[in-house]
Amino acid sequence: MRIGKNNTFIMIGDSVTDCGRKRPEGEDISTGTGWGDGYVNLVRGQLGAVYPEYNIRVINKGNSGEQSGDLLPRWKEDVLDYEPEWVSILIGINDVWRMFDSSNIVESHGDQGIYEHNLRTIIEKTLPITKNIILMAPYFIENSKQDAMRKEMDAYGLICKKLAEEYGLFFIDLQAAFDKVLESVHPMYFGWDRIHPNTIGHTLIANKILEVIEA
Amino acid sequence: MRIGKNNTFIMIGDSVTDCGRKRPEGEDISTGTGWGDGYVNLVRGQLGAVYPEYNIRVINKGNSGEQSGDLLPRWKEDVLDYEPEWVSILIGINDVWRMFDSSNIVESHGDQGIYEHNLRTIIEKTLPITKNIILMAPYFIENSKQDAMRKEMDAYGLICKKLAEEYGLFFIDLQAAFDKVLESVHPMYFGWDRIHPNTIGHTLIANKILEVIEA
Amino acid sequence: MRIGKNNTFIMIGDSVTDCGRKRPEGEDISTGTGWGDGYVNLVRGQLGAVYPEYNIRVINKGNSGEQSGDLLPRWKEDVLDYEPEWVSILIGINDVWRMFDSSNIVESHGDQGIYEHNLRTIIEKTLPITKNIILMAPYFIENSKQDAMRKEMDAYGLICKKLAEEYGLFFIDLQAAFDKVLESVHPMYFGWDRIHPNTIGHTLIANKILEVIEA
Amino acid sequence: MRIGKNNTFIMIGDSVTDCGRKRPEGEDISTGTGWGDGYVNLVRGQLGAVYPEYNIRVINKGNSGEQSGDLLPRWKEDVLDYEPEWVSILIGINDVWRMFDSSNIVESHGDQGIYEHNLRTIIEKTLPITKNIILMAPYFIENSKQDAMRKEMDAYGLICKKLAEEYGLFFIDLQAAFDKVLESVHPMYFGWDRIHPNTIGHTLIANKILEVIEA
Amino acid sequence: MRIGKNNTFIMIGDSVTDCGRKRPEGEDISTGTGWGDGYVNLVRGQLGAVYPEYNIRVINKGNSGEQSGDLLPRWKEDVLDYEPEWVSILIGINDVWRMFDSSNIVESHGDQGIYEHNLRTIIEKTLPITKNIILMAPYFIENSKQDAMRKEMDAYGLICKKLAEEYGLFFIDLQAAFDKVLESVHPMYFGWDRIHPNTIGHTLIANKILEVIEA
Amino acid sequence: MRIGKNNTFIMIGDSVTDCGRKRPEGEDISTGTGWGDGYVNLVRGQLGAVYPEYNIRVINKGNSGEQSGDLLPRWKEDVLDYEPEWVSILIGINDVWRMFDSSNIVESHGDQGIYEHNLRTIIEKTLPITKNIILMAPYFIENSKQDAMRKEMDAYGLICKKLAEEYGLFFIDLQAAFDKVLESVHPMYFGWDRIHPNTIGHTLIANKILEVIEA
Amino acid sequence: MRIGKNNTFIMIGDSVTDCGRKRPEGEDISTGTGWGDGYVNLVRGQLGAVYPEYNIRVINKGNSGEQSGDLLPRWKEDVLDYEPEWVSILIGINDVWRMFDSSNIVESHGDQGIYEHNLRTIIEKTLPITKNIILMAPYFIENSKQDAMRKEMDAYGLICKKLAEEYGLFFIDLQAAFDKVLESVHPMYFGWDRIHPNTIGHTLIANKILEVIEA
Amino acid sequence: MRIGKNNTFIMIGDSVTDCGRKRPEGEDISTGTGWGDGYVNLVRGQLGAVYPEYNIRVINKGNSGEQSGDLLPRWKEDVLDYEPEWVSILIGINDVWRMFDSSNIVESHGDQGIYEHNLRTIIEKTLPITKNIILMAPYFIENSKQDAMRKEMDAYGLICKKLAEEYGLFFIDLQAAFDKVLESVHPMYFGWDRIHPNTIGHTLIANKILEVIEA
Repeated sequence: MRIGKNNTFIMIGDSVTDCGRKRPEGEDISTGTGWGDGYVNLVRGQLGAVYPEYNIRVINKGNSGEQSGDLLPRWKEDVLDYEPEWVSILIGINDVWRMFDSSNIVESHGDQGIYEHNLRTIIEKTLPITKNIILMAPYFIENSKQDAMRKEMDAYGLICKKLAEEYGLFFIDLQAAFDKVLESVHPMYFGWDRIHPNTIGHTLIANKILEVIEA
Repeated sequence: MRIGKNNTFIMIGDSVTDCGRKRPEGEDISTGTGWGDGYVNLVRGQLGAVYPEYNIRVINKGNSGEQSGDLLPRWKEDVLDYEPEWVSILIGINDVWRMFDSSNIVESHGDQGIYEHNLRTIIEKTLPITKNIILMAPYFIENSKQDAMRKEMDAYGLICKKLAEEYGLFFIDLQAAFDKVLESVHPMYFGWDRIHPNTIGHTLIANKILEVIEA
Repeated sequence: MRIGKNNTFIMIGDSVTDCGRKRPEGEDISTGTGWGDGYVNLVRGQLGAVYPEYNIRVINKGNSGEQSGDLLPRWKEDVLDYEPEWVSILIGINDVWRMFDSSNIVESHGDQGIYEHNLRTIIEKTLPITKNIILMAPYFIENSKQDAMRKEMDAYGLICKKLAEEYGLFFIDLQAAFDKVLESVHPMYFGWDRIHPNTIGHTLIANKILEVIEA
Repeated sequence: MRIGKNNTFIMIGDSVTDCGRKRPEGEDISTGTGWGDGYVNLVRGQLGAVYPEYNIRVINKGNSGEQSGDLLPRWKEDVLDYEPEWVSILIGINDVWRMFDSSNIVESHGDQGIYEHNLRTIIEKTLPITKNIILMAPYFIENSKQDAMRKEMDAYGLICKKLAEEYGLFFIDLQAAFDKVLESVHPMYFGWDRIHPNTIGHTLIANKILEVIEA
Repeated sequence: MRIGKNNTFIMIGDSVTDCGRKRPEGEDISTGTGWGDGYVNLVRGQLGAVYPEYNIRVINKGNSGEQSGDLLPRWKEDVLDYEPEWVSILIGINDVWRMFDSSNIVESHGDQGIYEHNLRTIIEKTLPITKNIILMAPYFIENSKQDAMRKEMDAYGLICKKLAEEYGLFFIDLQAAFDKVLESVHPMYFGWDRIHPNTIGHTLIANKILEVIEA
Repeated sequence: MRIGKNNTFIMIGDSVTDCGRKRPEGEDISTGTGWGDGYVNLVRGQLGAVYPEYNIRVINKGNSGEQSGDLLPRWKEDVLDYEPEWVSILIGINDVWRMFDSSNIVESHGDQGIYEHNLRTIIEKTLPITKNIILMAPYFIENSKQDAMRKEMDAYGLICKKLAEEYGLFFIDLQAAFDKVLESVHPMYFGWDRIHPNTIGHTLIANKILEVIEA
Repeated sequence: MRIGKNNTFIMIGDSVTDCGRKRPEGEDISTGTGWGDGYVNLVRGQLGAVYPEYNIRVINKGNSGEQSGDLLPRWKEDVLDYEPEWVSILIGINDVWRMFDSSNIVESHGDQGIYEHNLRTIIEKTLPITKNIILMAPYFIENSKQDAMRKEMDAYGLICKKLAEEYGLFFIDLQAAFDKVLESVHPMYFGWDRIHPNTIGHTLIANKILEVIEA
Repeated sequence: MRIGKNNTFIMIGDSVTDCGRKRPEGEDISTGTGWGDGYVNLVRGQLGAVYPEYNIRVINKGNSGEQSGDLLPRWKEDVLDYEPEWVSILIGINDVWRMFDSSNIVESHGDQGIYEHNLRTIIEKTLPITKNIILMAPYFIENSKQDAMRKEMDAYGLICKKLAEEYGLFFIDLQAAFDKVLESVHPMYFGWDRIHPNTIGHTLIANKILEVIEA
């Protein structure tokens, strides 16, 4: 196990992370439904069921619709102030998506340079607290690598990978993980919009995170 | 104008046609919201605004989720009993879709032979009443013709085309219409699931129907 | 086409424009239902379906219940700040209506002089940004030109026309458009209150706007 | 007073009578809100406040949307079975209205001959029980007697008047009552759709009924 | 008629006046339901139906639960600022009621001296604007004059009467009006709690107000 | 204790008994809220807290609005089929109440002879199963014994008392119980309508039942 | 009786006290449902039914989820400002509970030293106003005294007992009260979570409070 | 892998299985939320993510509140008619639970003999179709083996184990699985009622099922 006893693990991102989590805290001491119904809760479930004696605290800090730039103003309050031992980041999908579903709303479009800058900023703010940062590549559940949105998303994923290597962080190539499964099944297998996965897709993400932690 | 004064025009299909229409009748004499918010209402709007003196009656008989086989038991009550002068049919999307989003639910899958048989049955029941039948090819707002679901959908569209020619019906190649627009824009331009279009996609469908009628 | 690629088109007005648009922005990048279900959405649908490569941005800034004076305080934030290439204005119906449904609430009544002044003010603020302003005459779907409310509304329409000519703007005589259709049908054809049209009436308005833009 | 102590007074009609009454009974012994918020409740209020010792029972049997033909199948259950001493009837508005707001739905249109026949049928069924029948002319809150819908409505009113005279019933010319007030005010004074009046219009109807009863 | 053309008539009080009125204004130019469903709306209905040419503006300023002291801080904004020609006041029921349903919550109890002082204050503030003030005695729909709450309520009514005489205002003895009807019927005839009347009781109040105005 | 271990105690009546109980069974094994929030639940609470080892089953069979005649058709299914060791009955309030709040709805009025007959019928059906029947007198929380409704209610209470004596049943004079408390407080102390008590009044009823059982 | 006429009795605590009370005041002069549906309302019911002439005011100041530290900042506003003659306190359950259901959220855990300090603080602030303070031991409806959460809860109860003795307050050992009943029944008898009791458990608490007051 | 390609896996039981599944089918081809949010969905997620090429169909047939006897009448329709290759059964918790939370409702109590008979019946009906039956022992998340409800639940678990051995079925000892985790954590770790687990407990159950299938 890479994660230690009594560690706090914050998972931050957009709607793929959010999944209806409770607010302001992405946890719920009374009813157990505060972590949303996505990969965050699945990771929590496995950690709690398999390693109960580790007493890991998982907090969901996903916010639906957010882009990489939205993480900056809330990074201190939502991440650093908890002094977490582990942080995972899944951001960038909306930076790319808006370029294609909102081509005429220019101010909503992402930019690779800005994306890299945003990630770099939050990484550098976090390193003094912990090096256990998991960067997850944004993905598009689309077979065709020639698809314009897939191409753009791949570029964002490469930025993640580059930064993970540069700073010595953990990197999860979610696009590769989905690509592997797409060899057997159609994108509709994960739901209809190719971004928000059903439980199968969330399990795939959660398993990748657990691989990093349990290694 | 091909359509005559005081004609009744029934548009039948699945959720792309339904769009929240009123039930049991897909029209609403008091509030004007009974035709759903899709192409049916757009066709009604144009016929009413441009040809008010024609006094055309438009009725929406779309039912969300239906496949070609679901039209058979309701064809008499929902179409023939009105003795309509015009009928449009947009069916088959769910016959195909279930093969890909529900690959493990075999009984929900469509079958090209059965699809052709179903269409043939309703066409032959309708011809004694009217020959003004518009067959619309089911579509998938997907660029890649190599995509498995797109391929299957194309096969269904060819069946529509073949039957339209065989029986001398009007045929609208909606897949071709969407393909043309996809040269300029990404599929996300029409919404997220590549099946249920936003108003832009519905306008595209409505315009094709109006071309047939106004010719 | 008079409108250019990547242009922004703001449509502002009262409830006839509003039609349940999203707030604060009258557009919706995720679900496609942000433009309300009136003429704004119809114009957007046609521009998007017929001219996808133009990538026009349409924004609905209608506010239900507003009169001409209500546009002034929000003109900068809701129009000028977007630096739109096109603006359409449909205002004045409520200036007139309140005189007849609220004859005993004097402060809610419109005034022709103030109406002209209000329109003049917003036109002059807009001209430095764009000359592509479409002024639409307020209308009353009422056959009788002797009707007191129709007479007052006609006077407001004349003010619009006069200002359009004076400043060289586009003018759409919606009252004339409705009058033409009323030769064939009863006002009840457009709904019950003679102000808020059903989809047929909204299509009539949208077609007029498209005529200006596509000319 | 024409009405006697402990009499039952049934008021039947369409939405102008209904006004949200309770079902199945149009009265409510516990909360007092069962009579709807239209003229029926106003008549009940005045009878109860001014003649408490008369102990009159008022029952609302209006059903929104109904036409004259809809009264026949429910006449026994909703009127005769109560053996009422008084009955008021306000029906016919929807027979006429549908011809104008639903010109393309032929089966919804009224017919003067059928209207007269329907009224005659229910009158003759009622006379063995009571002669205290108040026939109210259907109305259209429209100034112009040249309006097509007003003309048709006037013809229906004349049928009411003719039958009232023929059978010796009470007749209330509601159209004349509204016409008188329209000399001072615009139709918008009574609401927006010229059919469903606000409290002012309902008070006008109630006062006419009270004139008959209190005479 | 005592009331003049285009006059404004403000009716202020507690829940008996409020009856679900719209806020902030107790009127509604669009739907006609803003005056609540109590005596205020009944007075408006009669004024509008019988004297349409008078164009009277009626405003409901009742607030549920209020006591006499609650009128003071809102008197300027809710009454004086309108410069009304007529004002009616029905207050004091809750000053008394709380003494009996909340005997252990001392700070909620009314006090005759304070009640008189409160009324005197608002009367003197109003007189410079209009002398057309109608003071209505608070009432308790209770037969027994020996009942403790009835006795207290009667004392409050006497204060109203005294002040009306002292300042030359109109006075309506609602308790006497209810007492007269209670000779024929049981208090349950007006509803269950002896304070909030059904439409019959509200009609009784409205008729008394109309007597003053129409005299 | 008169009640035995594992006994079933059914309490039947009208809205005073019902108090929002669960249906069809007036108990709820999972959440504990099935007994309504009136005297039935209070009795259950005391029996459960003070005599847990007695394991008494309490079932609420009150139905809002019912009169004595409504108990007959459901007596077998709702009482006898349970073979209860104890039954309490509180009925008759609505037989009387309707004579006063619905004086013009004759068929809703109670009748002393029928009331006695109804009670006699259910008592005789029950005696073969158990003699532990508690008859509770209907009450009216009204000081004045001269009040017409109070007088009628007192007559009904006397019928209860007479039958209890005749058949050797337990009798609780609820009217006397409320009268005693009314020496100290006003009827408003128990709520506003003098029939449906607040928790204080329900506690008073529950205490009387517990006195019978615990004696 | 230890409690005096017209006394105010404030009951403060966590969700066991709260039980859906009204806010901001835990009482409701109009409908009688403001005290929640737990022991507070039961105490109020008995005091009101058995000692109506004492006119006791009961106020519920329970707040769901609170721990001992949450009482401090609101003690002045919620207790002292009323100058109550009696105060009951039931706090500490959540101090303990969070250690077991939220073992990984350290900042939510209680601490015996802090608990004692918090209680001491509010006691000393209250004593100048009244010595009639009832301290109730927090409880866990759990048979096994070896259970870790039960052990911790017992320690908190001992702190309550110690402070009650030290300051001469009333002490209610709720754990002992539940333990006694658990000799006859299973913890599930009181509901499912062993903390929030059903009406039976609340009756048990209320009876203990009444014993103190009525002694 | 024990499970084969294209196999159907039905999981049946009570509320622990149900978890808000869709009805009538416990699957949902359109939105992916039809399997409930418990262990069934977790198993589906893992099978879909790790073995996408197996195309396993998972169906949730849990019904909240059911006992072993409730499975019999629906066994054919809900299990046999699907001809599933795999079936899992988790039943008996409510047979036991009702004996403790509803000790006075005798007809709701389970019985070991009847439980065994019920299980035997459904097993023998299923064996002709498949031998891949997973029997899961009902559990009580309670440390103390001396607890009366725990003792009874253990007896039910032994019956499951005995039958699994007798018929050669798969057996999962869920009680043992929970007991192991309870060495590290308190029962409150899994939620508050010791029966319905949070996601951690559901993950524990799902992992046990996956162990059987993946072996």
